[in-house]
Amino acid sequence: MALRPLGDRIVVKVLDKEEKTKGGIVIPDTAKEKPQKGEVIAVGTGEIVDGQRVPLEVKVGDKIIFSKYAGTEVKIDEQEYLILRQSDVLAVIE
Amino acid sequence: MALRPLGDRIVVKVLDKEEKTKGGIVIPDTAKEKPQKGEVIAVGTGEIVDGQRVPLEVKVGDKIIFSKYAGTEVKIDEQEYLILRQSDVLAVIE
Amino acid sequence: MALRPLGDRIVVKVLDKEEKTKGGIVIPDTAKEKPQKGEVIAVGTGEIVDGQRVPLEVKVGDKIIFSKYAGTEVKIDEQEYLILRQSDVLAVIE
Amino acid sequence: MALRPLGDRIVVKVLDKEEKTKGGIVIPDTAKEKPQKGEVIAVGTGEIVDGQRVPLEVKVGDKIIFSKYAGTEVKIDEQEYLILRQSDVLAVIE
Amino acid sequence: MALRPLGDRIVVKVLDKEEKTKGGIVIPDTAKEKPQKGEVIAVGTGEIVDGQRVPLEVKVGDKIIFSKYAGTEVKIDEQEYLILRQSDVLAVIE
Amino acid sequence: MALRPLGDRIVVKVLDKEEKTKGGIVIPDTAKEKPQKGEVIAVGTGEIVDGQRVPLEVKVGDKIIFSKYAGTEVKIDEQEYLILRQSDVLAVIE
Amino acid sequence: MALRPLGDRIVVKVLDKEEKTKGGIVIPDTAKEKPQKGEVIAVGTGEIVDGQRVPLEVKVGDKIIFSKYAGTEVKIDEQEYLILRQSDVLAVIE
Repeated sequence: MALRPLGDRIVVKVLDKEEKTKGGIVIPDTAKEKPQKGEVIAVGTGEIVDGQRVPLEVKVGDKIIFSKYAGTEVKIDEQEYLILRQSDVLAVIE
Repeated sequence: MALRPLGDRIVVKVLDKEEKTKGGIVIPDTAKEKPQKGEVIAVGTGEIVDGQRVPLEVKVGDKIIFSKYAGTEVKIDEQEYLILRQSDVLAVIE
Repeated sequence: MALRPLGDRIVVKVLDKEEKTKGGIVIPDTAKEKPQKGEVIAVGTGEIVDGQRVPLEVKVGDKIIFSKYAGTEVKIDEQEYLILRQSDVLAVIE
Repeated sequence: MALRPLGDRIVVKVLDKEEKTKGGIVIPDTAKEKPQKGEVIAVGTGEIVDGQRVPLEVKVGDKIIFSKYAGTEVKIDEQEYLILRQSDVLAVIE
Repeated sequence: MALRPLGDRIVVKVLDKEEKTKGGIVIPDTAKEKPQKGEVIAVGTGEIVDGQRVPLEVKVGDKIIFSKYAGTEVKIDEQEYLILRQSDVLAVIE
Repeated sequence: MALRPLGDRIVVKVLDKEEKTKGGIVIPDTAKEKPQKGEVIAVGTGEIVDGQRVPLEVKVGDKIIFSKYAGTEVKIDEQEYLILRQSDVLAVIE
Repeated sequence: MALRPLGDRIVVKVLDKEEKTKGGIVIPDTAKEKPQKGEVIAVGTGEIVDGQRVPLEVKVGDKIIFSKYAGTEVKIDEQEYLILRQSDVLAVIE
């Protein structure tokens, strides 16, 4: 069972908001827009721009930081997923 | 009797909101935008972008997740259908 | 006496809102956007996109479903017509 | 004395709102957007799109229907004219 | 001393609002947008569109009608000028 | 010590608002948008449009008129500078 | 541990708001938009425009001035970072 996102969309498994990465990235609790961490589960085939399909920059398995209020929630087997557009992804954690 | 959608539009048969797919996708009841499931009944020929017709990524028979408040309702023989744009489709269920 | 619509516009004869098509399409009375049926009477020559004129997908005689609040009303010989853009057409009834 | 409109603009002589055309087009008095009739007096040379000048579809002498609230009024010798963009023209009366 | 406008901008000398042209163009005092007359004093070199510079349609010395509330006022030697974009010019008086 | 502006931005030294140029340009105090004078100190390399970098029309040393409320203030050695986009420049004073 | 920003995004280390650069750039405390200083820590690979990837103008190590309210905060090892778009960068300090 899987979701195949369309265009420039990706499916993201939301990482536990309390967990810390080894490198110690902590999302601060401020008045600014708060990003959130996730792992990429599936990626679309990319959008067609000027007649060419532009493949996505993120790939399955990437740990990413994305805008907190972006996307649409779905649940698969009690696991919370989000369907985002790649433009909502801020950075990949390396 | 059939509907032939124009451009990047598709005709979708809305799946019973209570039913569960075998894989167990449940649409959570949260404050976020709620997606809905459907089956693609007919697809348009695609939009013309930069002089080329871009065929749709979804095809007849696909089970899809789409944005709940998208589209226009029509009824054919007591069955509820929606006419959506492909951009309202979030993902294909595989 | 005729109207020749410009660009991607079409002239539509509004079909009786009470009539049913043979296939039984009934436009439901819901809170969602309500489409309406009509017959295409005249079509424009299409818009020019990227230096090429894109002909319309609908043709004279097509029965169509369109967005109810779209277009501009005109009356010719006591018959109500609408001038729509093709983008307001949702689907062709076949 | 004449006005030479720029780009995709046209100069329109507003036709008497009470007059009827031979074919009997009457503009209904409804809550919808009301179109108005006019005769094209002068046309611009067209806009430049993708490096090419696109000539106008309407020509001097055409009787047209246009969106009522469009354009800018000018008076020449007590005759009321409007300067419209071609995109405000709905159809040509033939 | 002169102003060289940038891109698609022009410098316009505002003509006396009370004066009448020989042809008798009078700007009516209505609730609609009121145009104003002026003479073109200087023109920019045009905007670059799709890699090509598009020269302006108006030239120095043209008498024009433009949208009344457009542009930015400057005064040179007690004479009122306006810096407009060419898109604010409705027509050239010939 | 210098600022190198990015893209189509320029760094402008604001000229004394009370000073008059030799030609007598006075910025009137009206309800309309008030322009302001300045001297160009540094220019960006231009924006990339359709795959080509478009160099700026203004150059270092130009005296310009720009929209008063445009840009971002910075101070270098007690001198007030503004970082503007070239599109906020109305004209060059020659 | 590092962040790889996507597209035209950059990761910026915010410089101490009280510090002064050698050249004496002081960000004034006015009602206008206040810029802020930072050092570029990582840059994306650039956006794809018209089928070509446009590399960023700023590079790792650049000291920049950027719009104060731009971007998204993240903290790595108690150091505050911002993820910005290059379009939020006003100038490079040289």
